[in-house]
Formats: sequence, structure tokens, C-alpha cells
Amino acid sequence: MTHGADPFLLQLLVIFLWAKIFGELFEQLSLPAVLGEILSGVVLGPYLTGFVVPSDAIISIGELGAIFLLFTVGLQIRPKELIRVGGSAIGVALAGVALPFLMGFIYLVLRHHPTHEAVFIGAAMVATSVGITARVLEDLRVTHSRPAKIILGAAVFDDILGMILLAVVVGLVSSGSVAWLQLGLLLVEAVGFAVLMIFFAPGVIQRMRPGLERMETHNAPLVLALAICLALSVGAEKIGMAAIIGAFFAGLAFAEYAPEWNLIPRVAGINEFLAPFFFFIMGAKLNLSVFDRRLLIAAVVVSVLAILSKLIGCGLPVLREGWDTAVKVGVGMTPRGEVGLIVALIGLQMKMISDAAYAIVVFMTGMTTLFAPITLRFLYRNQPKTEEAPAYDTGQTIERV
Amino acid sequence: MTHGADPFLLQLLVIFLWAKIFGELFEQLSLPAVLGEILSGVVLGPYLTGFVVPSDAIISIGELGAIFLLFTVGLQIRPKELIRVGGSAIGVALAGVALPFLMGFIYLVLRHHPTHEAVFIGAAMVATSVGITARVLEDLRVTHSRPAKIILGAAVFDDILGMILLAVVVGLVSSGSVAWLQLGLLLVEAVGFAVLMIFFAPGVIQRMRPGLERMETHNAPLVLALAICLALSVGAEKIGMAAIIGAFFAGLAFAEYAPEWNLIPRVAGINEFLAPFFFFIMGAKLNLSVFDRRLLIAAVVVSVLAILSKLIGCGLPVLREGWDTAVKVGVGMTPRGEVGLIVALIGLQMKMISDAAYAIVVFMTGMTTLFAPITLRFLYRNQPKTEEAPAYDTGQTIERV
Repeated sequence: MTHGADPFLLQLLVIFLWAKIFGELFEQLSLPAVLGEILSGVVLGPYLTGFVVPSDAIISIGELGAIFLLFTVGLQIRPKELIRVGGSAIGVALAGVALPFLMGFIYLVLRHHPTHEAVFIGAAMVATSVGITARVLEDLRVTHSRPAKIILGAAVFDDILGMILLAVVVGLVSSGSVAWLQLGLLLVEAVGFAVLMIFFAPGVIQRMRPGLERMETHNAPLVLALAICLALSVGAEKIGMAAIIGAFFAGLAFAEYAPEWNLIPRVAGINEFLAPFFFFIMGAKLNLSVFDRRLLIAAVVVSVLAILSKLIGCGLPVLREGWDTAVKVGVGMTPRGEVGLIVALIGLQMKMISDAAYAIVVFMTGMTTLFAPITLRFLYRNQPKTEEAPAYDTGQTIERV
Repeated sequence: MTHGADPFLLQLLVIFLWAKIFGELFEQLSLPAVLGEILSGVVLGPYLTGFVVPSDAIISIGELGAIFLLFTVGLQIRPKELIRVGGSAIGVALAGVALPFLMGFIYLVLRHHPTHEAVFIGAAMVATSVGITARVLEDLRVTHSRPAKIILGAAVFDDILGMILLAVVVGLVSSGSVAWLQLGLLLVEAVGFAVLMIFFAPGVIQRMRPGLERMETHNAPLVLALAICLALSVGAEKIGMAAIIGAFFAGLAFAEYAPEWNLIPRVAGINEFLAPFFFFIMGAKLNLSVFDRRLLIAAVVVSVLAILSKLIGCGLPVLREGWDTAVKVGVGMTPRGEVGLIVALIGLQMKMISDAAYAIVVFMTGMTTLFAPITLRFLYRNQPKTEEAPAYDTGQTIERV
């Protein structure tokens, strides 16, 4: 036996440390930690310095990180809360999903990108990363303002709509054909899945409760939740969707019981450990050499479209509540994050988008994620701060120490 | 893209489900869940049915499971508690470590096993798995009885002594030579490591506190704890120890702050997810075909020695407290668990022990783990039950639902 560390363990340590150090540096500059974690992958990854070339085992860990990330996002969307926010939030979410997709899709088709690539990039422009906005609103102590409530409510629907869209896109692209009938079928399938998980799954879990309470296994509800998260991830892949869609809906199904069963801190522990690997790998897959003048222009245009489409799509539906609210809601909905990146990564893995298209998505994610906190802080500069507790938290913001 | 699940995810699901199902069945029979999880690996693994052949990525996950298992064990040994139990507990632990090691070692040398194999099996016979005993004492509601307190205190020292012994054994065997000077050096190194972690590390962490509180990263203490767990695991491997030794001591260092920083539920979440993979792989590595009559006899003899050596080694030091206490303490200290199995697995991976010797250890672990709960329930049959909360919990028993 040679002295020396197991390469898997060593990579695990190096990636975890650097991702967290970059994240902390970004946080210190009031920038989102997730961008720092991605940047750590860009800097240390194979394309730039080649300091860390993630092994297959590490890539599997990153994949698991994406699954738990989406599981956590789902776990925090309580069906009852969803029904409560209703109204404005749904309008904001629907328009805020349709417009970015269309604007992204049309621009890329006009640039002569292949249709499937345009579809993927359009889909990657859809989902709002509420984590970043929620964090900013929390820091500004305005989570109880009217725009904040609309944003947080809409972002929840946004996640669900984004997942449905991703399911449809992956289904369409992986089957090769783009028949209207199939599109309809996939849509029904995905919406059905969502409705099932939101309205029926909690009831099923409720019925399993006596059985669960008779179980001798420690933390039986957590074990059940983890098993169902893995099962739906595998199931989603089996029917041609992405694993994370299954994980997200598994989270939705358990959301109602998450507080009672104290699932969130435990799943957050898993998440806290695994997510940095996912973001690092995101960054490590970014090939900076594809950035020439032409691509940079495209990336900037896509970023501007991503911002405008959310501003218009999410601002217009609430314009009757005044310009101030409309602008705040629009800006609050701009950041794209993990979901968009996952969509792009899935496209890359399915060889449906090129390195260049992937680079556009990462660039767009970075731009929108930087734009929102800075602009929000500016818009809220005169707002009196309230000291109340945050109404809603998600993903990256749960349980700050 | 082919429809069908990623094989990694599929294996993850299959192993998690079966390990938990076997675990639950065992629990329903009032047997330790961990044996069920190991059995799931034996039954589904490559040697028996070949239904699941763990991939490299899964083996990495199992390895990570062992690291977090030992991290959790360390995290629950609070230095202050250690100093408080003192006295009888130290005597029990010391004799209970020395005697099993010697009896195992001598028996195997007499059976003409190679010295390094005898050393490994001796070392695997040392560590008490307090989780199983603690669980039984808890079920019987006698955690506040005098023998229970001695057992739980001694098991804590036992873990530390076991880790020191493992460090010395791995160090000796991996260097090839068995010079007295080197033995002394390794012993000083390992004890020094333990003392450092128990007495100095908490102070260092205390000093880092203001820095931690200025950190913007969410869950900064958890991130720090995870980073140090990984760093000490890699560090331990670098200096020729086993990774789990580093993880265990990292846990010790943070134990004092675990309650305040709420580390345990979060690390328990990671543990709950990863540990089944470790136990499954344990079982999957057991080649049942090595069991002929000769090996079976050896396995039974080693199991009897494992029980007797703890009965005598741990019972004698407390004989002045009466036969009843001595027997209960002795029996309570017999179960071997994860630590012994890890020692054997490390031996197997270092090619220092044969498949047959590994089988002996797994058999011995099973026997001692079955012996203790059954005998304890018998010994405590007339004890009045108290309704107090458990004084001490570890590994598998934390946070029962």
C-alpha cells in the first residue's frame, strides 16, 4: 500500500474547499455565493487551469447534488401556500415563463441555431431562481412588502412551470420527432404528474402515516422521502424525462409534511454537502475558449432578452398595482439559477446543445443573477425596513446561521 | 439518447431500498437494523445472487458513508462528558480493548495465520459498537441504571482506543516492518492526535468563532465541520492512517459545539442517506463460499472469544460493584459493529487479510451483535423501568422518530 490519499477523497476535499472559498468571497462582495461556486469550477476546471479534472465518481456526486437541490426546492413549496398566493402570482408566472422562452427561442432560430438547441436555450431562460431574490429581500428586510409576496409566490409557480416545460422539451427532443400530437401528450403527461404530486400525493402520504409510525427504522419519514426522491428520479428517467424532474415532484409531494417531520434541516445537510460539487462541475464544463466576439454578442443579447422578457412578462400582469410594484416584481423575477443551468447541462449531456450554447446559458445566468440583487437594492433604497421574519425561503437561503 | 435510467442512479435506488427493507424487517424482529443492511448486501451482492454488483461510483459512496458514520460517532463524544465519566469507565475500556485484541491475536497465530492477519482480526475485535447496546438500553428504559452509565461511558473510550489501535495497526502493516521503536512512534503519534483533538481542537474552534460569525456562507459552522472532516480524512490517509480515523477525530473536535450549532441533525441527514451503502457493500464483499467446516469452527471460536474477552475484560474491573453489574457491563460491551467491520474492510483492501479472515470478522460481528441485545433483555427482565430520557445516544440511535 502506498502512502497517499485516495484520489476520490482528495478531489472531494479540494472541490468542496475551493467552491466554498469562492462562494464566501462572493458573499463578502454581496454577490450570490452560487456564482462563486460556479466560478471555482471555471477557474480550477479542465478548460482553464486544469488543476482539477472531475473524476467519474465526482461527476456522479454532482449529479446527486442536482437531484437533492431540486428535491429541496420542491420540499419548500407547500401546496396549501400555492393555493393561497394564487391570483396575481399565477399570471406573473405564466407570462414570465412564456415570454422568455419565446424571445430566447426566436432569437436563436433567427441566428440559425438548430431548433433543438433553440428549444433548450429557451427552456433554460424560463425558471426564476428565487433563492437569490429571496436572499436579497431578506437582507433588505422587505419580505412582507407586496412586491416581495408576489415575487415569492410567482417564483413557486415558475419552478413548477419550468419543470413541466423541461419535461416536455426533453421528451420531445429525445424522441426526435416534433409532432403536435406528441407535444400535447407530453404536456398532458407533465401537467398530470404535477397535479398528481400537488393534490394527490400528500393524501397518499397521509394514509401511509399509521404504517410509518409503526415502522421501527430510525427517521422513517426521512428514509421514505429519500427513497421516493430516488425512485421518482429513476422513474422520470425511465419515461424519458430528466431525473431532477422526478426529484422536484418528490419534494412537492412531501412539502406538506416537511415541517412536522423535520425533513428540511436533514435534507439541507445532504444538500449543503452535495450542491457545491454540482456547481463546481457546472463551471468546469464551461469552455472559455468558445468565447469569440460573435458569441459574446449573442451572449449579451440573450442576457438582455432574459432580463427584458422577465421585466415585461412579470411586470405587465401587475401593472394595475402601480409602476413601482411592476418594476420591482419584474426585476425580482430576473435571476436564473440552478434550474436553467441544469436544463443547459442536460442539453449538453444529450448532445443537443453545443459548448457555445452552453456558454451562452452560463453567461446569461451570471448576468441575470448579478443584475437582480444590485437593481433590487437600488429600487428598495428608500423602503422602511420591517423586522419581521421572512415569509418564504428556498434552496440556498434555508436556515442561515 | 436512449430511454432508461442512469445506471448509477438505478443502483443507488435499488441498494437504498433493499438495505432499508432488510433493516426494517430486522427491526421488526427486534434485531439490529445494521445486520439487516449487511445481509441485504450478502443476499443481493455478487457472491450470492449477483443481482447488484456495486459500481465504482457506488463504492465511493460507501466509502463516504464510512467517513460520515465515524464523523457522527466522534461528533457525539463530548470531551467534557468524557472527563466526567472517567474512573470505572476507563478501566473497563482499557481492559476491554486489551483482552479481545490479545485473545484474537493469539488464537489466530496458534492457527498459523500470518501475523499481519492476526493483528487485523485482533484489532477488529476491539471496538464496541455502542449504538446497538444504547438502543437496547433505551428500549428497556434503563439508560440511567449504574451499569448502563458505565457501558455508555466506557464505549466512548473504547471508540477512541479502537481508533488509536487501528492507526497503529495500519501504520505498522503499511510500513512493513514491526520494530518496537516504530510501534512506540506510531503510538505516540496516534495518542498525540487524540489528545490534540480532545483537548486543543475545541479551543481552536472557539477562537475561530468570531471569524465564523462574520462569514456570510449559510450554515458556516456546518461547512467548516464538513471541510475539516474531509481534510482530516485526507490528512490521515496522507500520513498512512485510515481516512475514517481522521473523520472520527474531526467529529471529536466539533463535539463540544455540535448542539449549539445544530450540527447533528444535518450530519445525521447525510449519514442516514450514505450509511446504507456502506453496510450493503460490507455484505456484498462477504464471499460465503469460503465457509467450510474448518472456517466455521474458527468463526465460532473467534465469536466466543470476542464475547468472553469483553465479558472478562469489561466485567472484572467493575466486579467490586457486584456480580450483577459486572455481568451487565460485560454483556453490554460485547457487540462489535461498524468499527470492527471497517477495520476488516481496510485489511481486505490493503490485501492484509484473506476473504476467509474477512468472513470470520463479519460472522463474529453478527454473533456478538445478536448476543448482546438478547442477553441484555434477559438480564434486565426484572428491572423497574424509568421513564427518563436517554443520557447518551450514538451513531445509529440518534434522533429516533
